[in-house]
Amino acid sequence: MAAQGMLLPNFYSANPLCSPSRAALLTGRLPVRNGFYTTNAHARNAYTPQEIVGGISQDEILLPVMLKNKDYVSKIVGKWHLGHRPQYLPLKHGFDEWFGAPNCHFGPYNNKDRPNIPVYNNTEMVGRYYEEFRINKDTAESNLTQIYLQEGLDFILRQTKAQKPFFLYWAPDATHGPVYASKSFRGKSQRGRYGDAVMELDYGVGQILSLLKSLGIDNNTFVFFTSDNGAALVSGPEGGSNGPFLCGKETTFEGGMREPAIAWWPGHIEGGSVNFQLSNVMDLYTTSLAIAGIKAPDDRVLDGLDLTPVLLNNSESLKNRPIFYYRGNELMAVRLGQYKAHYWTWSNSWEELKTGINFCPGQEVPGVTTHDQMNHTLLPVVFHLGRDPGEKYPISVLSKEYLDVMNNIAVIVKQHQKDLIPGVPQLNMCDVAVMNWAPEGCDKLGKCLKPPESNPWKCVWPH
Amino acid sequence: MAAQGMLLPNFYSANPLCSPSRAALLTGRLPVRNGFYTTNAHARNAYTPQEIVGGISQDEILLPVMLKNKDYVSKIVGKWHLGHRPQYLPLKHGFDEWFGAPNCHFGPYNNKDRPNIPVYNNTEMVGRYYEEFRINKDTAESNLTQIYLQEGLDFILRQTKAQKPFFLYWAPDATHGPVYASKSFRGKSQRGRYGDAVMELDYGVGQILSLLKSLGIDNNTFVFFTSDNGAALVSGPEGGSNGPFLCGKETTFEGGMREPAIAWWPGHIEGGSVNFQLSNVMDLYTTSLAIAGIKAPDDRVLDGLDLTPVLLNNSESLKNRPIFYYRGNELMAVRLGQYKAHYWTWSNSWEELKTGINFCPGQEVPGVTTHDQMNHTLLPVVFHLGRDPGEKYPISVLSKEYLDVMNNIAVIVKQHQKDLIPGVPQLNMCDVAVMNWAPEGCDKLGKCLKPPESNPWKCVWPH
Repeated sequence: MAAQGMLLPNFYSANPLCSPSRAALLTGRLPVRNGFYTTNAHARNAYTPQEIVGGISQDEILLPVMLKNKDYVSKIVGKWHLGHRPQYLPLKHGFDEWFGAPNCHFGPYNNKDRPNIPVYNNTEMVGRYYEEFRINKDTAESNLTQIYLQEGLDFILRQTKAQKPFFLYWAPDATHGPVYASKSFRGKSQRGRYGDAVMELDYGVGQILSLLKSLGIDNNTFVFFTSDNGAALVSGPEGGSNGPFLCGKETTFEGGMREPAIAWWPGHIEGGSVNFQLSNVMDLYTTSLAIAGIKAPDDRVLDGLDLTPVLLNNSESLKNRPIFYYRGNELMAVRLGQYKAHYWTWSNSWEELKTGINFCPGQEVPGVTTHDQMNHTLLPVVFHLGRDPGEKYPISVLSKEYLDVMNNIAVIVKQHQKDLIPGVPQLNMCDVAVMNWAPEGCDKLGKCLKPPESNPWKCVWPH
Repeated sequence: MAAQGMLLPNFYSANPLCSPSRAALLTGRLPVRNGFYTTNAHARNAYTPQEIVGGISQDEILLPVMLKNKDYVSKIVGKWHLGHRPQYLPLKHGFDEWFGAPNCHFGPYNNKDRPNIPVYNNTEMVGRYYEEFRINKDTAESNLTQIYLQEGLDFILRQTKAQKPFFLYWAPDATHGPVYASKSFRGKSQRGRYGDAVMELDYGVGQILSLLKSLGIDNNTFVFFTSDNGAALVSGPEGGSNGPFLCGKETTFEGGMREPAIAWWPGHIEGGSVNFQLSNVMDLYTTSLAIAGIKAPDDRVLDGLDLTPVLLNNSESLKNRPIFYYRGNELMAVRLGQYKAHYWTWSNSWEELKTGINFCPGQEVPGVTTHDQMNHTLLPVVFHLGRDPGEKYPISVLSKEYLDVMNNIAVIVKQHQKDLIPGVPQLNMCDVAVMNWAPEGCDKLGKCLKPPESNPWKCVWPH
């Protein structure tokens, strides 16, 4: 894919965590604007587990809604994660089709404390993970990625035959714990279960690109590959690797938010090209609209930029565009050019660390991968990510380089914070009653579970 | 080069340090056999600074000597590092030509405490680093890589015209501290001075391959790219990166000895192939002889294997071949298949660490990146390098997996140690009188310096 497309080594997620990053992808806006954050405690990551009450706001305009202006048909395959209560589901927010699950799928798997997550085919449940959709946790075997692949390929085929423009959001979850791969991929990689899962996703992407080619629509289809957060090093040897980058998922170090990213569009994007423009998942919203010839919403702040000059002309014309790294509603760090300034540093708490939860296993940069929330606002910790991609060597606060950099970054941060209007936080309240006990269609399957009484509480977000 | 050749992700140096690794490359034998080690203290890295008395033993048969059996002409361009006293120089050990320096080139640069290192053209000095061969330490600028490149290209051209088989050992030193690049590469990479130096070396390799093609001898020339040790993380932000691997140069963790490696031979080695065979620089000795149709010496133990089945047939037939990781004459670790067992762990001493010398900056794996020499001989620390390339998660000593692995590895270690006859250690004695004060030819240049009186001492190797 990279050989036929463009590699973007400075591409970022919008958050070090799944739900906020996906909400940002589909709204073109930072989680702090679109409401995918919490104010329950300072600088906490929040997402949409089954007990979450909130979800994507009705006020947000998702990408598939915008794409309808040019008659695009949209499908999501795989994990949604923008809220699982009926009003938050994909078909209520512009998608025409959905095959997949609303949440993550980790345990317990007993249907007592929490239901196994449902799989939807459009508006109706067709089974549950670990039941109709088997995942063997002992052998890490499941053919779910193959099912998701077939759903994606079938959608492409149908829309092409119908000569309809389409948007496919292919969001498989095989590399999310508990990791799985189908039988023909298990044990095939050099990298254990995680490697097998990556290998199968790689195969899936290959199949999608092949189909586009064999249908003759490759020159007319923009494809982008990326991830919603860095590898979850907290998962131990079954987690991925962030290569040279510091720490992983949950953190605002590079390992938490720098993502593999490839743009592919034969005949339009130069094969084998590399572009160092700073960019992020929110740009995909804006860029997709630009490519589709649709005017972006002008009644709100969009954080996404139009990357078409980057993609189509291999320019790095958006030179002064910053990257903002948030945890909850706290701006933890800012990247501008090669420089990154940490205003706050935090890995996780000492209490969590003592229980074995570690977002930076094997890594420790004194004063940086801190286990107390450290406020560096007066004198941010600055790295040059070119010379020092691993964020190991802070630039001396006494150097001219530091002064020059912070002069530039301070202006951008001030502007950003002055204009920022936070959205209503959606990830503050939890309630066991809202879990996927009885999704629509469960009665037909005889798979309805009885919900407990409602007992809402302020969600506890430990990191 | 990789697209036209074979990538070997499990390729190793013979030592985490330059001199021993290079001695191993040219002898096909572990440093502990060929004498490139010290017994002055336990498990210490040693090399050939200017004060070293020793060098490559007369008893060793270097690759260019063997290649003479088929009339190969051999040249080394760049850093030799197998001893700089007259009897140890390249032309005394089989090379027909040499352009380059005998040692590393770090300071002080005052010609008082130590001479600036000489540059030789064959047997005669033609100048010194920092004098005739300028390196600007402030701007990190020097055109030395370009000079070395021209020397290499010129040699290839001459031998091709003369229709002579040739061996070029192109060993530039631009990425060794103090790092340098020529003007047209300075500031061109995203990765500071180090990146610029790598970029220029990359360009150099490209030029060499291009020349082979334009001369029409690419199908008849075996080219191998690798390094003598992992990136020196101790050099801070001007050092390189070992990506996902643990620590760097000087250590027997993966970052110290796993190397980038590409084999190139159009028409013989499959382009774009990847082979996971465990292999190392000593194999290049044996493999080169096999390719040249020369029988390897049979009067001594060779550690190198013939990789031609791997390279030419993309097989992984040498399945049970171990990798041995030494520091001095201590076997620190062994890799077999995906498993690595650490018999000893040591990063560096607490005393050194306190002075700011750190071989694992930003990294810390408890009980593994230790600052005391830890003896794990009774219960080695075992990693699965597939699942865990960063050596972060030791396998439980209570698991069946551990037992199975150690059963296999223990047999191999026992055999290895039973048969091992260490060579006479060459890196024990130092003397300021032996430095490059007055290399051959210095008088013609008026560049002779007066050596101080001989005062030999047992070299101190701190790590």
